[in-house]
Amino acid sequence: MRPSGRQNDEMRPVSIETQVTMHAEGSCLIKCGNTHVLCTATIDERVPPFLKNSGLGWVTAEYGMLPRATNTRMRREAKNGQSGRTQEIQRLIGRSLRAGVDRVALGERQIIVDCDVIQADGGTRCASITGGWVALKLAVQKLMKTGDVISDPLIDPVAAISCGIYAGQEVLDLDYPEDSEAGVDGNFVMTGGKLIEVQMSAEGSTFSRTQMNGLLDLAEKGVAELAEAQLAAVA
Amino acid sequence: MRPSGRQNDEMRPVSIETQVTMHAEGSCLIKCGNTHVLCTATIDERVPPFLKNSGLGWVTAEYGMLPRATNTRMRREAKNGQSGRTQEIQRLIGRSLRAGVDRVALGERQIIVDCDVIQADGGTRCASITGGWVALKLAVQKLMKTGDVISDPLIDPVAAISCGIYAGQEVLDLDYPEDSEAGVDGNFVMTGGKLIEVQMSAEGSTFSRTQMNGLLDLAEKGVAELAEAQLAAVA
Amino acid sequence: MRPSGRQNDEMRPVSIETQVTMHAEGSCLIKCGNTHVLCTATIDERVPPFLKNSGLGWVTAEYGMLPRATNTRMRREAKNGQSGRTQEIQRLIGRSLRAGVDRVALGERQIIVDCDVIQADGGTRCASITGGWVALKLAVQKLMKTGDVISDPLIDPVAAISCGIYAGQEVLDLDYPEDSEAGVDGNFVMTGGKLIEVQMSAEGSTFSRTQMNGLLDLAEKGVAELAEAQLAAVA
Amino acid sequence: MRPSGRQNDEMRPVSIETQVTMHAEGSCLIKCGNTHVLCTATIDERVPPFLKNSGLGWVTAEYGMLPRATNTRMRREAKNGQSGRTQEIQRLIGRSLRAGVDRVALGERQIIVDCDVIQADGGTRCASITGGWVALKLAVQKLMKTGDVISDPLIDPVAAISCGIYAGQEVLDLDYPEDSEAGVDGNFVMTGGKLIEVQMSAEGSTFSRTQMNGLLDLAEKGVAELAEAQLAAVA
Amino acid sequence: MRPSGRQNDEMRPVSIETQVTMHAEGSCLIKCGNTHVLCTATIDERVPPFLKNSGLGWVTAEYGMLPRATNTRMRREAKNGQSGRTQEIQRLIGRSLRAGVDRVALGERQIIVDCDVIQADGGTRCASITGGWVALKLAVQKLMKTGDVISDPLIDPVAAISCGIYAGQEVLDLDYPEDSEAGVDGNFVMTGGKLIEVQMSAEGSTFSRTQMNGLLDLAEKGVAELAEAQLAAVA
Amino acid sequence: MRPSGRQNDEMRPVSIETQVTMHAEGSCLIKCGNTHVLCTATIDERVPPFLKNSGLGWVTAEYGMLPRATNTRMRREAKNGQSGRTQEIQRLIGRSLRAGVDRVALGERQIIVDCDVIQADGGTRCASITGGWVALKLAVQKLMKTGDVISDPLIDPVAAISCGIYAGQEVLDLDYPEDSEAGVDGNFVMTGGKLIEVQMSAEGSTFSRTQMNGLLDLAEKGVAELAEAQLAAVA
Repeated sequence: MRPSGRQNDEMRPVSIETQVTMHAEGSCLIKCGNTHVLCTATIDERVPPFLKNSGLGWVTAEYGMLPRATNTRMRREAKNGQSGRTQEIQRLIGRSLRAGVDRVALGERQIIVDCDVIQADGGTRCASITGGWVALKLAVQKLMKTGDVISDPLIDPVAAISCGIYAGQEVLDLDYPEDSEAGVDGNFVMTGGKLIEVQMSAEGSTFSRTQMNGLLDLAEKGVAELAEAQLAAVA
Repeated sequence: MRPSGRQNDEMRPVSIETQVTMHAEGSCLIKCGNTHVLCTATIDERVPPFLKNSGLGWVTAEYGMLPRATNTRMRREAKNGQSGRTQEIQRLIGRSLRAGVDRVALGERQIIVDCDVIQADGGTRCASITGGWVALKLAVQKLMKTGDVISDPLIDPVAAISCGIYAGQEVLDLDYPEDSEAGVDGNFVMTGGKLIEVQMSAEGSTFSRTQMNGLLDLAEKGVAELAEAQLAAVA
Repeated sequence: MRPSGRQNDEMRPVSIETQVTMHAEGSCLIKCGNTHVLCTATIDERVPPFLKNSGLGWVTAEYGMLPRATNTRMRREAKNGQSGRTQEIQRLIGRSLRAGVDRVALGERQIIVDCDVIQADGGTRCASITGGWVALKLAVQKLMKTGDVISDPLIDPVAAISCGIYAGQEVLDLDYPEDSEAGVDGNFVMTGGKLIEVQMSAEGSTFSRTQMNGLLDLAEKGVAELAEAQLAAVA
Repeated sequence: MRPSGRQNDEMRPVSIETQVTMHAEGSCLIKCGNTHVLCTATIDERVPPFLKNSGLGWVTAEYGMLPRATNTRMRREAKNGQSGRTQEIQRLIGRSLRAGVDRVALGERQIIVDCDVIQADGGTRCASITGGWVALKLAVQKLMKTGDVISDPLIDPVAAISCGIYAGQEVLDLDYPEDSEAGVDGNFVMTGGKLIEVQMSAEGSTFSRTQMNGLLDLAEKGVAELAEAQLAAVA
Repeated sequence: MRPSGRQNDEMRPVSIETQVTMHAEGSCLIKCGNTHVLCTATIDERVPPFLKNSGLGWVTAEYGMLPRATNTRMRREAKNGQSGRTQEIQRLIGRSLRAGVDRVALGERQIIVDCDVIQADGGTRCASITGGWVALKLAVQKLMKTGDVISDPLIDPVAAISCGIYAGQEVLDLDYPEDSEAGVDGNFVMTGGKLIEVQMSAEGSTFSRTQMNGLLDLAEKGVAELAEAQLAAVA
Repeated sequence: MRPSGRQNDEMRPVSIETQVTMHAEGSCLIKCGNTHVLCTATIDERVPPFLKNSGLGWVTAEYGMLPRATNTRMRREAKNGQSGRTQEIQRLIGRSLRAGVDRVALGERQIIVDCDVIQADGGTRCASITGGWVALKLAVQKLMKTGDVISDPLIDPVAAISCGIYAGQEVLDLDYPEDSEAGVDGNFVMTGGKLIEVQMSAEGSTFSRTQMNGLLDLAEKGVAELAEAQLAAVA
């Protein structure tokens, strides 16, 4: 039995509220159960130096957690610098979102996606990717409305979900009590039925290819549900 | 005429939603017009070294802004370190809240108040103090409910408001369009009808004691209204 | 009775020795009792990026303390970075001095005022502002002598003094023994009889508007005396 | 055709020279083609604070590259701090090695594995894991010889290999010319025929589960060959 | 001819004013021509960790320059961290002073010598050593007066002087115009007629042993004169 | 008797293996007994800003130690920043190498010499200078082969050796057991029979000019032998 009473292949309820801040070109507040992430997209007409005069666009991401997003207060990164974990996560978010972007169609500009965790209960990096895509899409819609972008550089939604082996069972969408106990867990980023990124990891344990396939089956189901929620949000 | 159409002595609408995060001992989301600040209070049974075995409690504060809380995206402080402005503000918040605390009654423990600006439209430090007191009060109520604190260390609310001279007029509660134009502005922190902190500043200008008194009159009116909202929120 | 035996409205003796270093365009050593601050002004023909081609000048300040300027040795900031307190003070000094400058008359150049505390006994930020203005004035006189500046951008002296409530009495120009005990203290920056900056603060206490007015009366007296000393020094 | 002329399932020649430095408790120089990594293992009788008095051991890793290990000289991290990439890699190495350790058998002590890239030609993180295990094993052998450890905490070798899709082909053990062109690549860490970590990533592309399985087949072949080389080295 | 008109073996005038700050246990302002350094000595009853319970004392030094001590303003190290040059100099000062201390006689305590350059005209590290010894001696005298130290741990003065080859001539005590032109220069630290440290360096040039001996002869003469000034100052 | 059984004027065996990495323009692995340093030279067609359009070349150096190059593991500088010792050493290496370069003949380009200590047993800065010159020479030979440099900017080898007073004896080429006991030691950099840099230092001791001359005699002998090894390596 899962601590939340969910079925093994049951995701937490997802809600995506859009345009939640007055300044950002695109924004949403995504809630995956008790994990809440505020995602904003900022359009910047300057690209990084290595893309100057290339005609190609860029998407990058930054990630943060409010100090008391977690059960025990964490030290504020503004005082201590970004941890290795934070940097690893924001690199993943940026890479994942870029995989779903036609950078020629975007044109030579940059979109910066900020994902800030307001409340954490496991799966913050996946919620950041899923919500980040919504904020990105809304910003792109703005560019298309003004005619700055002609052909939509974002076709299929990019979404991510975690799966893991908890108490010997393959389960979908780990919450924090599961995540802290799971010997094996993975994050799966997908778009249009294909994979973008797979990160599976065992802490003090190992896993078989059969188990890996079981988790992938669950992930495919979860991502399909997330994509529906994303499309509804940006409609 | 003020850009918002408000009267000179008219505050922006204030709302304070409490217990907005599942983890913090006390929390609120304070909205002063379009300025939104999430305030959380964390109880820590350890005090700073200089208070060990003193029997006295401590209240401290940290302040941050999400990168796209502002009209133009700001660089993330986790990557660049806290600016002088940020440090100055969080020192002010901590000092202000401590002025309203009976540190003997609190007992030898620390409460850390985090104020994170979700959306900024002027007056973020004042909203942080006002909301921060609400989060602090809720955390203290929890300590009193469990019997860890017997006598309430917080009597009167601590609240803060900005006033300034905009287009030659003394006005209450500056929003960003006013704040960026005002030659003189001030932040006033009060409790129980008395002053805790006054910070008045002229940029490329000066002011008279008569003008100063005019702003203090406005501030007294504003803080009285804020105190009502605070008491309603923690009732 | 004050520890120093001074009257409540009596400042410490002030001396301002000018042109104390061979390299700086303007310099002075200001002594307010046992508080000694070396102030130098450096003319830099480059302005900060946001003023390029604006025709406007700029004045900025930096502040430091020698490690053993204080009774107990402080850690060297070059090894540990500037504290929040240091940054707050140097922002105040720069803001205060700019309020007394006609930036058009100064022309598109920058003057950097360095205030380094050689010996501290309370009131170092006020002494830095008062002495900083003298160094600034001397540098400007040099620019006027060479014809680089035609119309004097500095009319009235900018000076600052602290006042506070010590042992229940409103007193002028707190020294360290008073400052460390005072429940309420303030720093007042003035020029030409008008206010530039008021910073009043209560630590673990509050104050009334009547008390505030009492401190302002003292400050006006003190600043008038400082302005005389400044004018004598630059004559 | 691969740039090196290798078959799609052909690894680069691997050599592992052991005990290459006089100071470290365990060490090796691993060469995977032109990628050369010096791995040392240091025994530290102190564990990190969270393991004090737990009876459990710990294995951690650090990773670095000499500035001219690469074709173009990189800035020295000692001058600029560790990059996000470096931190991500050293977290992976530590996690991978720990998955193959019986931490009870190791006893309450820490082994620090340093992996320093002398020359880079793709696959440095995989070579670091593979060589790091050899250094770790040698250090453990020393502990067993002295009787400080009784039961061997390391059973099967932990090894890692990269695979990717280069020019439309699934290939084993990417070198730098392949790695910089591959749209999809992955790193696979295994022990005793089971998986420890899978990291697959597409840059500006996607991949199917069929392709993923193809890469896993290649990885299994590669890791089996590496494990033989490891066992020969520590025999 | 030297720019200053001095003879080749002629030092600049030296003055040492003692007890120039009210807080430090020992202090002096040393002037070697236009190079002015404020030296303070702080007694700290705690020693560095590696000396705990050793019965041995320690002397260490820190060095800094005010930003406008130099002809062109330097960036403040508190904002940018200590440069390599600064760290090198303060290590030299500490090493030099320790060479003249009987650490058993000093007892298990630390004396920290701060050398802050108020005005620079060449030779600041040498002036720091010479003045630093005076501050140190005065602090030790205080310890002896109170009976905390019985036997004097400082016998002969430690002093330092620079020499160099300027315009083909071997000259004593380089000022800045000479120092910036000299192809070869050296710093010589001596005590009681013996050498403690010799640092000779050629920039874009070389030197012979004969030249080296010529500079050493000059240095011996200079240090003897400095020692007299030191003894007079502490008498 | 020296711990190694060497004669007082006997160096450790020296070997210099060239072109040991595939990427660097020049490289060598120098072994002075058990001290092993990998030296690489990188040609950079850009010079530092202060040399733009001067027609002059530049040589600079960086120095590092692998964490377990030493008997006890040192903290990795990439995590903690370069120590004062490291900065001092790399400044010395750069200065020493530049003294042997005709910067006009080199032309307006920069060569960066990286010296990374693989294994340490005393004398790492001297080995870095000696090996660094070999890497530099090989890079320059490449520039001459392509015709980018016409006249050889490097004539005589630059080499360095340490000497010291160990157990009362003047000895050549200190290894770690000697270095950690020696009360006086020095590093001597020479080229073509002339001196470039002399650094002699006593820790808790002093030395006479006679002793200094004895060490210089030893150093001349040692450097002559090193120069032969350097010339053989680059032949």
